Amino acid sequence: MATYFITGSSRGIGLALATLLASKSDVSKVFASARSETESVKNLVSESNKKVEFVKLDVVSQESIKEAVSQVEKSLGGKGLDVLVNNAGIMPWTQGGVEAMNDLDEVFKVNVVSVQNTTAAFLPLLKKGSLKKIVNISTTLGSIARAQTYSIMSVPAYKISKAALNMLTVQYALSLADDDFTVVALSPGWIKTDLGSANADLTVEEGTKAVYEAITRFSKEHNGKFFNVNVPGWEHAQGTNQYDGEELPW
Amino acid sequence: MATYFITGSSRGIGLALATLLASKSDVSKVFASARSETESVKNLVSESNKKVEFVKLDVVSQESIKEAVSQVEKSLGGKGLDVLVNNAGIMPWTQGGVEAMNDLDEVFKVNVVSVQNTTAAFLPLLKKGSLKKIVNISTTLGSIARAQTYSIMSVPAYKISKAALNMLTVQYALSLADDDFTVVALSPGWIKTDLGSANADLTVEEGTKAVYEAITRFSKEHNGKFFNVNVPGWEHAQGTNQYDGEELPW
Repeated sequence: MATYFITGSSRGIGLALATLLASKSDVSKVFASARSETESVKNLVSESNKKVEFVKLDVVSQESIKEAVSQVEKSLGGKGLDVLVNNAGIMPWTQGGVEAMNDLDEVFKVNVVSVQNTTAAFLPLLKKGSLKKIVNISTTLGSIARAQTYSIMSVPAYKISKAALNMLTVQYALSLADDDFTVVALSPGWIKTDLGSANADLTVEEGTKAVYEAITRFSKEHNGKFFNVNVPGWEHAQGTNQYDGEELPW
Repeated sequence: MATYFITGSSRGIGLALATLLASKSDVSKVFASARSETESVKNLVSESNKKVEFVKLDVVSQESIKEAVSQVEKSLGGKGLDVLVNNAGIMPWTQGGVEAMNDLDEVFKVNVVSVQNTTAAFLPLLKKGSLKKIVNISTTLGSIARAQTYSIMSVPAYKISKAALNMLTVQYALSLADDDFTVVALSPGWIKTDLGSANADLTVEEGTKAVYEAITRFSKEHNGKFFNVNVPGWEHAQGTNQYDGEELPW
């Protein structure tokens, strides 16, 4: 029976993943964290028969992270946390491209430093868990090798922060390999969330199912790698929107 | 006759590069910038017959960057700046590895956000230049693909910031390609500077010569790529210390 902690659960992939996990018989607890408890989260919690617990968490605040860890530790009653999904993130559009970018600092804070602080704070609980998985939600837009492909997307700070997140992921993977951890960066695909927009490839259901399957599939052999989700029907698509579940280039 | 602007010129590679450039007949001006004018910079300036000009610059201050640009613009008297070398950077050691890292924010500021702010501010002058080169001093430790090789080096914030710097480099390369720019990330090799320590592979002279040769060699075909320096004698060395001048993996 696995326990999960998800950041950025008030909407989008985070909320959908928490909802999907709540329906699984081998999941005993889902900690759905966000800055505030939206109506959707409230409903999920109340319908989950205590399986989903809301945790107030502002990932850019060390104090808030500390309180979240304390709540989770108490709730687990001496047991460990199995899976941490670092999903919270922002993708601000930069009018004028990289030359006009002035939000790098802010985006780093949310997309990278917060992941560092959250991961470090939850490590003691994760080390007591049995699955020992840390999944950092990244993106193909964070692939330096594929930068040309996405040059039209004017989200330079997001791209740069996600390349940094990928390196952070690998640093943890190397550091925790001997403790049997699986630390991976996962690109969830382009999903029709608020962040992804209505023009995206995948419905929230398709994308979340693929993210869930990737998370459950990951094992030690995937440690320190960067993966695409696998969405049947997209694996033979042309171009870079191939959701083939394979490893992505840095 | 080329003009250069170098950040972090008070010591190490920055100072050595400014000194080497001052000796070249096809270089008309070297702006050596640093937070303060060290004795070494003072001596270089006074011995250079006005070829080297000191520019006070604290790269983490937008106000300071603005003043630096203003000084350079005035000094160039309507001409453009040819080459910007973003060399300033820090590499703090983290006792306890990535799990104990609490300086990511600070290291990002110096190693990435400062490069962004400096580059954006100097772009108008660079666009008026004839060489149009931006060289970001990176490192093989910033190669995500090579992370395993350098796992023993407990400088996680440095590694993560340099992976981010590589993506920043590529964003500029793509954005400025149509303006005939060459924007590259260059790993200078492991050099016996204060940052590199006395255990490093290359003397400051060897390393700086290699950096200079790389900068002069770079042309449009290198735009958006990540290169190693070329140091004859090291090209057949085993392992990762091959200074073969070739492209490095992200």
